[in-house]
Amino acid sequence: MKRSYIREILDATNENTISFAGGLPNASLFPLKEIQAASVRALNDISSLQYSKSCGIIALREKIAKMYTEKLDFKTSADEILITTGSQQSFFIISKMFKKEEILIQNPSYVGAISAFNTLDLRINGFDNISDLKNKLNSNNNLYLMSDFQNPHTSIYTDKERVDIINILKSKKNYLIEDAAYSYLSFDGNILKPISSEYENSFHLGSFSKVLVPGLRVGWIRAKKEFINKLLIPKEAIDLHTSTLNQMIINEYLENNDLDSHLKIIRNDYKNRMLFMSKCLKKYLKDFTFDLPKGGMFIYGQLNNINTMELAQKVLEKDVAFVPGEVFYFDNRKSNEIRFNFTNSSYKDMIKGIKIISSLI
Amino acid sequence: MKRSYIREILDATNENTISFAGGLPNASLFPLKEIQAASVRALNDISSLQYSKSCGIIALREKIAKMYTEKLDFKTSADEILITTGSQQSFFIISKMFKKEEILIQNPSYVGAISAFNTLDLRINGFDNISDLKNKLNSNNNLYLMSDFQNPHTSIYTDKERVDIINILKSKKNYLIEDAAYSYLSFDGNILKPISSEYENSFHLGSFSKVLVPGLRVGWIRAKKEFINKLLIPKEAIDLHTSTLNQMIINEYLENNDLDSHLKIIRNDYKNRMLFMSKCLKKYLKDFTFDLPKGGMFIYGQLNNINTMELAQKVLEKDVAFVPGEVFYFDNRKSNEIRFNFTNSSYKDMIKGIKIISSLI
Repeated sequence: MKRSYIREILDATNENTISFAGGLPNASLFPLKEIQAASVRALNDISSLQYSKSCGIIALREKIAKMYTEKLDFKTSADEILITTGSQQSFFIISKMFKKEEILIQNPSYVGAISAFNTLDLRINGFDNISDLKNKLNSNNNLYLMSDFQNPHTSIYTDKERVDIINILKSKKNYLIEDAAYSYLSFDGNILKPISSEYENSFHLGSFSKVLVPGLRVGWIRAKKEFINKLLIPKEAIDLHTSTLNQMIINEYLENNDLDSHLKIIRNDYKNRMLFMSKCLKKYLKDFTFDLPKGGMFIYGQLNNINTMELAQKVLEKDVAFVPGEVFYFDNRKSNEIRFNFTNSSYKDMIKGIKIISSLI
Repeated sequence: MKRSYIREILDATNENTISFAGGLPNASLFPLKEIQAASVRALNDISSLQYSKSCGIIALREKIAKMYTEKLDFKTSADEILITTGSQQSFFIISKMFKKEEILIQNPSYVGAISAFNTLDLRINGFDNISDLKNKLNSNNNLYLMSDFQNPHTSIYTDKERVDIINILKSKKNYLIEDAAYSYLSFDGNILKPISSEYENSFHLGSFSKVLVPGLRVGWIRAKKEFINKLLIPKEAIDLHTSTLNQMIINEYLENNDLDSHLKIIRNDYKNRMLFMSKCLKKYLKDFTFDLPKGGMFIYGQLNNINTMELAQKVLEKDVAFVPGEVFYFDNRKSNEIRFNFTNSSYKDMIKGIKIISSLI
């Protein structure tokens, strides 16, 4: 086991670092006043400070279920929702209870998922495209993927691709872990129906980290009731339950505020930051090729003939951070790719940081 | 894997249940106003809602280190403290990083530890006394124990026993996980020096759940710096970090309040409840034999010739809950023991509940 490169970068950064590295939401967009008010209300009830049930508090589970039914057209009841302490924990408890020798993941894939699966001593295998997925899915593996604004690649599966994946899954019966961390960060507000909605051996993972605030560590798993009941075993073994207070703060927030209005603000801001960063990249880092993302928090692309791992070390010495593509490949293959986060830097720092990177190539 | 019997009992209880089962602190003693104020102060800083470092926030680590140095005479610096999401998680990340085939535990032992170790697929072995411990410690196992007000047994290791255990450990070099969940709940305020203070291959586990509030899910591991750095790997894999807001609330609480004064209130209240329950037990459940505990949250004893597992089911039907001794033995041996929690029932309910138990024998 080794430390996640991204967490190491975050630890190595200081207040002077221009960081395009982490996946930090922009704190200036946090609905601070609303969360302060929600916190006051939650703390009016002393049970917010007591132990609570492993499955999570019912009022919050009901609200999340309603989001599925109303916003994703994916009919869901409260007993199909398990509250977790974020997606990292969700990976762990699902893999623990529905264990296979191998986990099959997208190439490239979210580093946090790779390290969670490594910690579980799972053999990791990767697929490059849907026909590769079809070949590699077998009775010894589970499937992990992000359907929307995939981290780091930013791609989404089209409706046609979703149908193809559903058909492959139905023929093979594997468990699917569908990570929807960025789904609500669609710039135009459109969200395609989750693959999980058409495939019942599935776990659909959500989190309040990207749509609201990450510091409360509250996420969830959506699965059929029978699966949720099984997941309670590793959930309670690993932390008894997710913070009662934090669940109640989020519940109060959702009770008294319109999450959609907040999402509109974030989507608009992130889209503008993305457009500005893409302009900077085209202007100052001409050799970097990329597709414009339609949501999420990253721009991902290639710098031909450049070892981006070495470049990342060099720019970090000049107080600029990005994540080289290599760390998103479970097999640590050499890569000329880069992931740039655009949500957490000022426009001025984007220009400055990208110019510094350019000067070091 | 099966669900923890205690969590199942907690799920089976309703508002009419007289519960001597869980290990719930008494919510009426929570310093609610102080936590409300701490929460307001924490939320004045927007970073309370953002991601933070895997090791925990420095101000809180410093305060916990100071508690070791000043209150336990166990010199500690902030980089010897890792913040966790409670002791369940501490068991997991230590066992993951310092893995042995087997974990050796006290008979009987804390159910949450047994289920966390089970979830890790560790072979569990138990020891009955210190000479048994000496025989069973070997190069293939780690040692887990509670030195103070052991859950469920309520016993403490004397100074002499601590020296014996330290000498055994020094001759065999095993890793020690010393769980100090109840140490600060000493009725007379005296706390013996941790075994870990004289043995460096050790992890000393603490939690704010029993001394302050459990609903925030904040605990810690104290170990040498080199160990803490290794523990960061599974910690960040499993939940990135413990809730930033909750760490800051506890930090603000400690900054502005005297934890010792609060502990005096809890100790005094719990001691009185323990004395009252022990009177009820002697009066209404004459066959139940037990030693008076010197701290913690439980009374533990025997009912000769009674299968307490069967009794527990029967009394639960009459809306009274306790935990039968059997569940604290990893090998599920038959037991005539019972653990009664005294911190979370009114005096009236103690009389009523114990009378109901008595009537069903």
